[in-house]
Amino acid sequence: MKSHLIIALLFTVGIVSGQPPRRPAVSSPDVHPDHRVTFRYFSKTAQRVSVSGEFLKAPLKMWRDTAGVWSVTVPPVSPDIYPYSFWIDSVQIADPNNTYLFANERFKRSILDVPGDKPLIHALQNVPHGKVSYHYYPSGTLKSVRSLLIYTPPGFDHQSKKKYPVLYLIHGGSDTEETWTKVGRANLIADNLIAQGKAEPMIIVMPYGNVRPHAMADFTPDLVNEVIPYVENHFPVRKDSRHRAIAGFSVGGGQTLNIGLTHPDKFAYICSYAPYTATDEFKRNFGNWTPDAHVMNKQLKRFTISVGTDDFLYESVKQNIAMFNEKKIKVDPLIVSGGHTWMNCRLFLTHSLQQIFK
Amino acid sequence: MKSHLIIALLFTVGIVSGQPPRRPAVSSPDVHPDHRVTFRYFSKTAQRVSVSGEFLKAPLKMWRDTAGVWSVTVPPVSPDIYPYSFWIDSVQIADPNNTYLFANERFKRSILDVPGDKPLIHALQNVPHGKVSYHYYPSGTLKSVRSLLIYTPPGFDHQSKKKYPVLYLIHGGSDTEETWTKVGRANLIADNLIAQGKAEPMIIVMPYGNVRPHAMADFTPDLVNEVIPYVENHFPVRKDSRHRAIAGFSVGGGQTLNIGLTHPDKFAYICSYAPYTATDEFKRNFGNWTPDAHVMNKQLKRFTISVGTDDFLYESVKQNIAMFNEKKIKVDPLIVSGGHTWMNCRLFLTHSLQQIFK
Repeated sequence: MKSHLIIALLFTVGIVSGQPPRRPAVSSPDVHPDHRVTFRYFSKTAQRVSVSGEFLKAPLKMWRDTAGVWSVTVPPVSPDIYPYSFWIDSVQIADPNNTYLFANERFKRSILDVPGDKPLIHALQNVPHGKVSYHYYPSGTLKSVRSLLIYTPPGFDHQSKKKYPVLYLIHGGSDTEETWTKVGRANLIADNLIAQGKAEPMIIVMPYGNVRPHAMADFTPDLVNEVIPYVENHFPVRKDSRHRAIAGFSVGGGQTLNIGLTHPDKFAYICSYAPYTATDEFKRNFGNWTPDAHVMNKQLKRFTISVGTDDFLYESVKQNIAMFNEKKIKVDPLIVSGGHTWMNCRLFLTHSLQQIFK
Repeated sequence: MKSHLIIALLFTVGIVSGQPPRRPAVSSPDVHPDHRVTFRYFSKTAQRVSVSGEFLKAPLKMWRDTAGVWSVTVPPVSPDIYPYSFWIDSVQIADPNNTYLFANERFKRSILDVPGDKPLIHALQNVPHGKVSYHYYPSGTLKSVRSLLIYTPPGFDHQSKKKYPVLYLIHGGSDTEETWTKVGRANLIADNLIAQGKAEPMIIVMPYGNVRPHAMADFTPDLVNEVIPYVENHFPVRKDSRHRAIAGFSVGGGQTLNIGLTHPDKFAYICSYAPYTATDEFKRNFGNWTPDAHVMNKQLKRFTISVGTDDFLYESVKQNIAMFNEKKIKVDPLIVSGGHTWMNCRLFLTHSLQQIFK
């Protein structure tokens, strides 16, 4: 026991990993059984500390005890996964005592995971698990080697005679190819829905949708000419449109519309979540669009647009839905409460996974 | 172009991902062709800003321009990958404009990647790539579902008649199961060495070595009774000791000694990097150790202990080497310059991968 204490101390001051001494460790966040949550942060020099998170309407002040530990306990938080951060005077940081970070290229936020009394659909449960693998593919189109995450369902066998349907799933504008698994928990949602018999076993392909230096540059040719052939050459998959779906959030929701609706021969399922469509590409594709609605409605088995009523894109998304209605394209809207959040993303994905490939 | 500008602005103030307005984006870090590096940070309110990193002997002050952009340019940095962070007054943060974070449970640091004039051994090169897959395995030993990363080499085929050797590779004390790929670049080092014919195609298994709540609790039974059987049941691997290796860094280097030397029938290759051995388990295993050196030296094809002369564990590691020498156990020391760093980890791994399974 004594050496455990010494080791805990070494960890605390950072010596075991070769770091200079730092702040002592405090426990944060502490999720209580009644779903209240206590946040803590150590500082003897800060003047003001507050917590800001997507479970709060406004940042909440934290208070300092005599030892220099700032804390606040928030009222019960509805079970889900939420991004949050601390403000230390004028500096915003991730919670230094929380190991779980939001995967994003710009925002360094922590994740608060409030478990449900019954396991939520994104919880790690005792069911058969698929796996997520990290691939590199050479993109002639973008002249670089790019990263790709691929979920294969439980019991997946590379050599099987069974051929799987494929969902192409695109992240939001400042997210990465990891955000759908690390924050969206797409793999665990699929594991759980497959175990419950509510979703078909499928392969989920999560590409990196940002085309640097312009995140808004067309991703369409890379997905269509590089990603899809890579997947179809390396995995036992069905290659007809009825076994191919595309979905995405925010900027990725706009990419989903751009890619899906210009290739209805390739995707019978299009699921766009809170799409961001104020782009040159969207204007080019849909500004003077004259689709043959009859043909397209036969090609698309399901075309869904989902959004929350508090989403800053809500009005824009409603206009998109109206535009598709006007062109006589059959679109199923899914309108829920909430904002432009990954809480809603998980909800939308859970909905889609039960609808596609049926 | 106009919409690109508007979108860049939306990203900058954080609107596209639903965030409240924040600091403007600045470019940081900028690596210049001569390997000087400029760091930048925007703040109109900070009093003092500095950069701290493993390429610097001491933190370096940054200076503010009239627009509120703090910056400093450091002299040429030797090509490698380094952790660094900013100090904003008394708060330490990752660089908000850098997308590349160090995978660690405690330290939120950014990564500086200074490429070599010729590609370094950890660089993403145009060679055949293996892949890294994320698995869950149920651990009866630890009564939880645990995460496991598995690298399979280029051209790996699950159904192949070829059986692969396996390296079990363990991270440091506050690292995660991702640190060996995200920071150690074990997968890219293996890809490059295999492409050059310098390493055997092998499977690399990267478990999560921390046993919470006590990171120092014995990991041995989980690795031996759960991880190895999981791998051997799911992958085409050789199951004799000549085709099994174990390696690890820091706390993981101590675990490597604990696991490897108590199971010399299982591992013919033991590679311990800067081992941390001030643990109950090490004392129990080696306090009154009376190995049959003749038998053990026949079982071990290679037993390496690596460390840097600036490592805070250098004296302790030298004592370990002396202890093994005294017991007549054949150990190959690899002593290099440098400290308790992942720069040295990559060097040690590059060395090991060329020695094992030959």
